[in-house]
Amino acid sequence: MIQRRKTRSIKYGTVTLGGDAPVTVQSMTNTRTDDVHATVCQIMELYDAGCEIIRVAVPDMFAAKALPSIISQSPMPVIADIHFDYRLALASIEAGIHGLRLNPGNIKKPEHIKTVVIEAKSRNIPIRIGANAGSLSKEWLENTDHSLPHTERIAQAMVSGAFSQINILQDLDFFDIVVSLKSSDVWTTIHAYRQMAKQCDYPFHLGITEAGPLVQGTVKSSIGLGMLLADGIGDTVRVSLTDTPVKEVQVAHMILRSLGLRKVFPEIVSCPTCGRTRIPVIPIAREVEEKLSQIRADITVAVMGCEVNGPGEAREADIGIAGGDGFGILFKKGKIVERVPEAQLVDRLLFEIKQMIQLKGDNNP
Amino acid sequence: MIQRRKTRSIKYGTVTLGGDAPVTVQSMTNTRTDDVHATVCQIMELYDAGCEIIRVAVPDMFAAKALPSIISQSPMPVIADIHFDYRLALASIEAGIHGLRLNPGNIKKPEHIKTVVIEAKSRNIPIRIGANAGSLSKEWLENTDHSLPHTERIAQAMVSGAFSQINILQDLDFFDIVVSLKSSDVWTTIHAYRQMAKQCDYPFHLGITEAGPLVQGTVKSSIGLGMLLADGIGDTVRVSLTDTPVKEVQVAHMILRSLGLRKVFPEIVSCPTCGRTRIPVIPIAREVEEKLSQIRADITVAVMGCEVNGPGEAREADIGIAGGDGFGILFKKGKIVERVPEAQLVDRLLFEIKQMIQLKGDNNP
Repeated sequence: MIQRRKTRSIKYGTVTLGGDAPVTVQSMTNTRTDDVHATVCQIMELYDAGCEIIRVAVPDMFAAKALPSIISQSPMPVIADIHFDYRLALASIEAGIHGLRLNPGNIKKPEHIKTVVIEAKSRNIPIRIGANAGSLSKEWLENTDHSLPHTERIAQAMVSGAFSQINILQDLDFFDIVVSLKSSDVWTTIHAYRQMAKQCDYPFHLGITEAGPLVQGTVKSSIGLGMLLADGIGDTVRVSLTDTPVKEVQVAHMILRSLGLRKVFPEIVSCPTCGRTRIPVIPIAREVEEKLSQIRADITVAVMGCEVNGPGEAREADIGIAGGDGFGILFKKGKIVERVPEAQLVDRLLFEIKQMIQLKGDNNP
Repeated sequence: MIQRRKTRSIKYGTVTLGGDAPVTVQSMTNTRTDDVHATVCQIMELYDAGCEIIRVAVPDMFAAKALPSIISQSPMPVIADIHFDYRLALASIEAGIHGLRLNPGNIKKPEHIKTVVIEAKSRNIPIRIGANAGSLSKEWLENTDHSLPHTERIAQAMVSGAFSQINILQDLDFFDIVVSLKSSDVWTTIHAYRQMAKQCDYPFHLGITEAGPLVQGTVKSSIGLGMLLADGIGDTVRVSLTDTPVKEVQVAHMILRSLGLRKVFPEIVSCPTCGRTRIPVIPIAREVEEKLSQIRADITVAVMGCEVNGPGEAREADIGIAGGDGFGILFKKGKIVERVPEAQLVDRLLFEIKQMIQLKGDNNP
């Protein structure tokens, strides 16, 4: 249904971005990178949650020195996030990093930039460059069309800022580039990526930056990334939340699933409660959600409040439960399978789901 | 920025829908309607959270009998949600209800439909009709274009289903109609409203039904409602979550704010934490979010992890705090105002926000 934008294909280790590759989910550790144990633990936790590419901050040589150990233990490609100091980029490349996030324009000396780019190129390490609305120079803002609305002017400046970074790399014959254009404003972000999409074929890393706490950040990321992905724009996504990075990964998968782009984890269909509700739907739905987050399968699971309307309204769901008085029902594709005592309802549902997955054999898509 | 679809204007009591009216936020109580005290308490709580229209289920005469008392105590228009029984509609009209949600096609006898419609018309009570994907008849599904993808066929059936309800009302010379087309699938919902938007000028009530628990429901509602609202489609929204209705109202306002449609409550800009973070950003952002949900003002508040990048990255925010070691900073529009001990940071921020609001005088937009 979604016609994806044609992009150049690049590789972070074994993970492809762009071309015909599916949209990947990434996140960033918030541990101290020089604490190898804590960082690897978080990487494993994020991997289990569906993270496919992980970025770590490399603010100093202590962090760079931790990279070989982190990379060797990571089940997914690792990207080093670097600011200003080209020696950190070289140390990261030396450590076997799979990707770099840096703006070459922030490295002051041209010979330093050149050294980093030559090393990255010789090892096929892509570089993500980006312009964030929060760090635009006055110059970029001045050089925009003053007749445009504010958000579009900022977007224009972001695109110019990104091209100034791209040009440095292209002039050094480097084209393994990923582009990001982040703002905490939804429209600014959408305008920037849409403008950029017309002007280059580099794959895009999508994100709304500093989107806020869990719920507000989820709203802004879902609208911004959702509209761009629906346009076919975006090759990898990072949802940015002021919450645990596991939530970022979960929300990213929910966005991709809602648009039909990827269906890695189950989806829950559940009713808002009303006067007719006969079981405590809110805690039951939360429990089912929590338990399903451990299961990888393209399956839709319903949790409905009432036996009368539930199965019919949720007939598009593969399997579901609905409340009765003391007893609930288990149904599949809208058809009642069995009455089950309320206390056993969730366990029974999960048992049936696991059986369905085994039969379908799509435990690890 | 968003060109809104031109719609006929209708009125629920003093609240206008469609025409030039802003997109309104509504929700539904999940108390027993015949429990007047519980229902009115929840209505007050929802009103404080920003709810502007409230729907209550009227499943029986006990509920209908409670309506006069509920309506007289409600600070916002009350809509009665009715299925099948025309007497409940008549009793609700008699009770002074401001709107009805019913499908005339579900009331079997033509003379009963006519009685309800005549009564509603004589008191200027709008009727919302709707087709939900979960309750489409086989006939509607059969009468669709079988060459279309599944989601578009369902959408087509929903539009036909809605028109069959609209036609009953129009044949009785009734035009105070609001239309909803809900599915738990994001694309089906988007297709249905987009198709319908081309075929009538009635105002639309937007919603993704049975969207799921808090986070997943927020993702689906934000994408679905976000894309439609960005197209200019939608006159009132109901976010449907398996959670407290207060969350539904908060998420609805966040969606409208993110798109720049309405800015009733503050927005938080906050960074995901990283290795550089010097204050516990996650709990601080949650505390600020919680406290700001009580304040009505178009203001952007930043909660940033580090003193070095925070103020610059969040310079679009009206006011913000960033972490230091033991001390934090308070900044306005990117400029540092003062260093504040960490323990006093949140209180000081809220004090400054309240002062800013008093100066701006937009406490009650």
